[in-house]
Amino acid sequence: MNKIIGELDRSKMIYLISHINPDGDSIGSLVALGSTLKEIYKDKVILIKSDNIPRKFNFLTNIETLSDLNVLNNIRDNSVLITLDCGDISRIGEAYNYIDKFKKIINIDHHISNTNFGDINIIKSDASSTGEIVFDIIKENNLLLNKDIANALYTAISTDTGSFIYDNTTSKTHRIVAELLDYDIDKDKIIYEIYQNRSMEKTNIFIQAIKHLEFFSNNRIGITVITKKMMNETNAKSEDLDGIVEFIRDTDGVEIACVIKELENDKVKVSLRSKSRINVSEIAEIFSGGGHIRAAGYTIESNVEVAKNKVLKEIIKRLR
Amino acid sequence: MNKIIGELDRSKMIYLISHINPDGDSIGSLVALGSTLKEIYKDKVILIKSDNIPRKFNFLTNIETLSDLNVLNNIRDNSVLITLDCGDISRIGEAYNYIDKFKKIINIDHHISNTNFGDINIIKSDASSTGEIVFDIIKENNLLLNKDIANALYTAISTDTGSFIYDNTTSKTHRIVAELLDYDIDKDKIIYEIYQNRSMEKTNIFIQAIKHLEFFSNNRIGITVITKKMMNETNAKSEDLDGIVEFIRDTDGVEIACVIKELENDKVKVSLRSKSRINVSEIAEIFSGGGHIRAAGYTIESNVEVAKNKVLKEIIKRLR
Repeated sequence: MNKIIGELDRSKMIYLISHINPDGDSIGSLVALGSTLKEIYKDKVILIKSDNIPRKFNFLTNIETLSDLNVLNNIRDNSVLITLDCGDISRIGEAYNYIDKFKKIINIDHHISNTNFGDINIIKSDASSTGEIVFDIIKENNLLLNKDIANALYTAISTDTGSFIYDNTTSKTHRIVAELLDYDIDKDKIIYEIYQNRSMEKTNIFIQAIKHLEFFSNNRIGITVITKKMMNETNAKSEDLDGIVEFIRDTDGVEIACVIKELENDKVKVSLRSKSRINVSEIAEIFSGGGHIRAAGYTIESNVEVAKNKVLKEIIKRLR
Repeated sequence: MNKIIGELDRSKMIYLISHINPDGDSIGSLVALGSTLKEIYKDKVILIKSDNIPRKFNFLTNIETLSDLNVLNNIRDNSVLITLDCGDISRIGEAYNYIDKFKKIINIDHHISNTNFGDINIIKSDASSTGEIVFDIIKENNLLLNKDIANALYTAISTDTGSFIYDNTTSKTHRIVAELLDYDIDKDKIIYEIYQNRSMEKTNIFIQAIKHLEFFSNNRIGITVITKKMMNETNAKSEDLDGIVEFIRDTDGVEIACVIKELENDKVKVSLRSKSRINVSEIAEIFSGGGHIRAAGYTIESNVEVAKNKVLKEIIKRLR
């Protein structure tokens, strides 16, 4: 890490950015590292929002200091870009158009698939979150850690571990969080904003999706359909569908969960989750999609009913 | 604690019990303390189940060694009873009928309302869970801690903190859990059994409840009704209703959540939750019920519709 500090010392300006469709780790690690670097480098540090920031993260201190992409029109020579939680450089979105203007890129991430696109790469795939790596960087370099920064790191780690249930959660994760709680962070407020404040749009599309849930093959398959009409009537956005397929999967007996979302009249997106035995990426590949053993998806040109029958047929084949 | 060990040394037999309607902390702390004491006191130690144990805890080692209440028909002189996670002695259920046969009661609990009913009381209301207190007892007395016992303690602590989101979660809680994870516990299996394996009955009654969810007063009130017919059709038990009123409360804008459950034809149970401002125990008290500021309830003799109108009227009064 000392080489990073050396690099930052030599830079005219330091820009930080994280990935589009930002989640808690994207925003939290950005705000945390940005805030601690501002202590040293003051106005040399600029935090950039690659995308709109979900309202639920508005409680973070310094969130209002994030700059729009147009600040990139005036990048000075000898500037460095720090990317956070981006497995690939394309994850920074439209900011990629400005990439050649940077002297160096510092790539800080925990995704095992990271493409090492940086001039300096700090990739720790055993870290639960990029927030955990930022915590390490702060400790190793004796950078400032205060309540605001601890709030941002807790947000990053809590969200990327599903509140410490995902298998990326280690004893180290819990030890870091214990240390963050010692900063008297606003844990209850963070928990409320992140987990206990579901929007009415998300609530209503969830209700619609659950109303249309069907089980097949002795409850081993759970499928629901979300039509454009349902999305319009509830005023829901794509991100409001998060959690539906997992809700179905987490039912006792269900081995495969599936959500079929109508994108256009004859175009649907199919999301698949498997509990244990079945490799859903094999099913996704049949329809030119992809993913992992337990989570995969694809888009096909067909109406909802045809898509449902096709995916059901493939699932049933594999249940036998 | 040394006085406990002294007491146990002097006892003919050591019985352990926890509360009826057992949750993860009840079962986990019982199995953990029982297992570590068996290492020292062998057959002197008897673990008692005060109630049926939910299937989801079957993965715990030693869960099958728990004895039925009838083992209490042969209590020897000079025996001690350890109660775990019981705020009041009545929480041990029918085992209370045998209470006079014990020489001493050791009461280990974290509820602030604990009535100190024991001859020895180890009450730590700042502990997240009774599991956390058992961990301390094990460490202070150099008792055995192994993977099986760590599994049981993790189960206790994880469930009683809602996976580390409730405000009873402290930095100490996270430090203990870090140490438990160092025993290479079966975390993924525990998480699956506890959080990701919702029964079909619970799933179906949840769907029914959500279908009947209604919002009032500009979405500041969310109410649903669960009839006997719905319970029968889904084959659900009372415990399967856990989480429904919280799901309603956790909607953005909702200040009061309410679940009205039909018990008999003209008898209903009303559960209330408040997000912040309103004291729902005041509403419960009007109908001879009780509770806390944020969670309260009552039972009244009326049909579902009348009960709904009555509670709505009281809520609306307070929203103004």
